[in-house]
Amino acid sequence: MVVLSGGTGTPKLLRGLKELTEFAVIVNTAEDIWISGNKVCPDIDSVLYTLAGIIDEEKWWGIKGDSFRTHEMLLKLGCDEFMAIGDLDRAVHIFRSELLRKGLTLTEATKRLRKALGVEQEVLPMCDEEVETRVVTDEGDMHFQEFWVKRKGTPEVVDVYFKGIEKAKATKDVLRVLESCDFVLIGPSNPITSIMPIISVRGIKELLIDKTVVAVSPIVGSEAVSGPAGKFMRAKGFKVSPLGVAYVYKDFLDILVVDDVDRRLVGEYDGVKVVATNTIMKTAEDSKRLAEFILRFD
Amino acid sequence: MVVLSGGTGTPKLLRGLKELTEFAVIVNTAEDIWISGNKVCPDIDSVLYTLAGIIDEEKWWGIKGDSFRTHEMLLKLGCDEFMAIGDLDRAVHIFRSELLRKGLTLTEATKRLRKALGVEQEVLPMCDEEVETRVVTDEGDMHFQEFWVKRKGTPEVVDVYFKGIEKAKATKDVLRVLESCDFVLIGPSNPITSIMPIISVRGIKELLIDKTVVAVSPIVGSEAVSGPAGKFMRAKGFKVSPLGVAYVYKDFLDILVVDDVDRRLVGEYDGVKVVATNTIMKTAEDSKRLAEFILRFD
Repeated sequence: MVVLSGGTGTPKLLRGLKELTEFAVIVNTAEDIWISGNKVCPDIDSVLYTLAGIIDEEKWWGIKGDSFRTHEMLLKLGCDEFMAIGDLDRAVHIFRSELLRKGLTLTEATKRLRKALGVEQEVLPMCDEEVETRVVTDEGDMHFQEFWVKRKGTPEVVDVYFKGIEKAKATKDVLRVLESCDFVLIGPSNPITSIMPIISVRGIKELLIDKTVVAVSPIVGSEAVSGPAGKFMRAKGFKVSPLGVAYVYKDFLDILVVDDVDRRLVGEYDGVKVVATNTIMKTAEDSKRLAEFILRFD
Repeated sequence: MVVLSGGTGTPKLLRGLKELTEFAVIVNTAEDIWISGNKVCPDIDSVLYTLAGIIDEEKWWGIKGDSFRTHEMLLKLGCDEFMAIGDLDRAVHIFRSELLRKGLTLTEATKRLRKALGVEQEVLPMCDEEVETRVVTDEGDMHFQEFWVKRKGTPEVVDVYFKGIEKAKATKDVLRVLESCDFVLIGPSNPITSIMPIISVRGIKELLIDKTVVAVSPIVGSEAVSGPAGKFMRAKGFKVSPLGVAYVYKDFLDILVVDDVDRRLVGEYDGVKVVATNTIMKTAEDSKRLAEFILRFD
């Protein structure tokens, strides 16, 4: 089984899934950014921390119990480090970046990192090339992190594009895990900025067509459970609804899991089966229950 | 008044001097090194922390009361960050490096940093070019920090050289403070690895010849008060004694301050006057007393 993941939503689901089955995770890297001298991979880190059992389950980023001594000192000195990087989290960024500086690929560096963190599951960057989600807004064209973290998601979104995506190709490891699985789960991550980069990497989408692909809608009713998914879907011309999510994935999707509040949508639509359950994951128990529901389709 | 400084010895003296008079400091940068994505300038930082009143007076590097969360996490992950960088200290390295990445010179970045730390005295890197102290040992040719921190100064030293020194030239600021002063103090820093790089920068030595130059010997008896000065002086063919120090500075030195234990050396030698006092600085009071002694020659 292979899971496609962004941050927040899918990691919440992985928290439950890891108690029940084996899987590999292919992770979005288009939100990665060099900050304070080192490479931050927000989605990879959230996945790793979740699987290592050290994620901060309040924020769903960063490490539980982390301190912010360096970050606070930077602010005191007048240096605007616009993401709040924890002291332990920063060590992970340094570990990764030292390996990249030595010439390792992101895939190799991530493998070393997951072993250092004691993570058994394969965690694979979607590609080794640098891809950058750019958000075109009424206030200019900016990196996703600038839009979401620095500007708190307030500018109007006109478009989204993935800079460098034309050069990105599926890694050997990504091809291997996809070729050897039958079941692919797309977690409840942002369809536009988390999943679309993954399926836009050359070589990935073709491999999804023959699999049983199940997606969990991150849109409940007509709103995203968390994050800016709604704004981005609208900008890309999709309806902000679970069926809008199905439409983003229409080329390969078999089953869409929607929340109970959208139970009226249960049925078949152009080959996509819509099923409903409680998709809100507040506790570890919620995560496990949703994971069990999904595993019935495997 | 201008002070030439390395780490440890001269900062100890600056602790006293700053209570008594105004001065600018020209600092050795040949021990600088990029670590964990950011530029560490050990001597500049020790000078800045001393003048800001935040230096760790146990170790004479780093910030008082600092924690090592990131460093310890790196070690736990198996990443050998060979200098123990504190969390607050790391913020200073990031602040500097962010400015360098934006295209500022080290002089400009240091100016911003000293203002952010509330330091009134000018603190000037000896040059803006990268110069690197390399130690040739029986175990190979290595960066000074590798020799001193990683290998704990144990290899036999065959030679020392300053990679890149031929391209280094005195900055506008260094020329300005030197041209407008009459009195230059060379602190009790390592004559070979702290002071020799400074006086080897094109344009500096010539300006020292006409000044009253006072140096404090870091060698007491036949040993260095701290650090590897003895090993380096021997490798460079100098006697490990206060008079050996005078010989390193012979082209421009007027007065050498030696410790009371070397009082037998008091006298005149080829135009250098040797005077004696207690040069050991354990307390802030010791630093001030030595600074007062030196200021008599101004």
